[in-house]
Amino acid sequence: MRKVILGVAVSLDSLIEGPNGEYDWCFTDQDYGITELVNRVDTVFMGRKTYELMLTINDIGIEGYSKLKNYVFSTTLEKVQERAILVKGNIKAEVERIKNEDGKDIWLFGGASLTKSLINMGLVDELSLAVHPIILGQGTPLFRDVQNRIKLKLTGTQTYSTGLVSLTYLIE
Amino acid sequence: MRKVILGVAVSLDSLIEGPNGEYDWCFTDQDYGITELVNRVDTVFMGRKTYELMLTINDIGIEGYSKLKNYVFSTTLEKVQERAILVKGNIKAEVERIKNEDGKDIWLFGGASLTKSLINMGLVDELSLAVHPIILGQGTPLFRDVQNRIKLKLTGTQTYSTGLVSLTYLIE
Repeated sequence: MRKVILGVAVSLDSLIEGPNGEYDWCFTDQDYGITELVNRVDTVFMGRKTYELMLTINDIGIEGYSKLKNYVFSTTLEKVQERAILVKGNIKAEVERIKNEDGKDIWLFGGASLTKSLINMGLVDELSLAVHPIILGQGTPLFRDVQNRIKLKLTGTQTYSTGLVSLTYLIE
Repeated sequence: MRKVILGVAVSLDSLIEGPNGEYDWCFTDQDYGITELVNRVDTVFMGRKTYELMLTINDIGIEGYSKLKNYVFSTTLEKVQERAILVKGNIKAEVERIKNEDGKDIWLFGGASLTKSLINMGLVDELSLAVHPIILGQGTPLFRDVQNRIKLKLTGTQTYSTGLVSLTYLIE
């Protein structure tokens, strides 16, 4: 079965954006393992807010990203751009169906609401967090309202010269 | 000047306790660098809740801990045990006075409220976080309501066989 990998940038206090949606603190000077992740997947899952943010960005700056199949999860959107697929209704059944299709793994790109839903449903298999050397103090927690404790198995750490630490885990 | 080192255990989602104060998820099977930290300091700062929790624990299980001088920060307590010193009133002036005394460094042991206050006042110099391989989902964030972004300089990482990752930073 295809795996769902949550791959996101976080601050040391585990926030994915500042109080006004700021992500200017995210490093873009190096690859930070993103190419390896993109090569492992052929599909991206994202929530509505992330999708709407992506629409405002001309060039996301990730090589190979444009080849990935995009699923947008939303209860409010009526349609999405032609190159994306809208998922409404029964998220669990739909994600299970997609995970059972042939294909490479799936990159869960955010945000917090979709992450919470998929983790609570037991549909996320791995984590790949780029922990930035900053405390934001206020903003959106990545794991907001996860219902139960989730035990993890550390599978790798990588330290970069900028102080970013990449941590990868399996969800047990 | 003596340095204040915030040294605590956190979950991957940067919580220091579960929704009912649980800390049963903290690993106690190895030293995890705690002896090195204890040897560096001669003084401990803690908030009231941490102090009251410590009173309920017979043996904290940290060698050398009993030799450390304890300062308890509280606006509500009237007195503390004879071996501890109560800090009320002007926290900033008092911490600056203690930092300017001769002595080894100071271990800021928690909790979230005292941490927030000291970070917001610019009185914390280093972080030493034992990042446990677990998502708690709900509980007390270590860096709750820190007012401004705090830039960090990574000074070390250590990975343990249990999946705990120790991250140390200087506050810039």
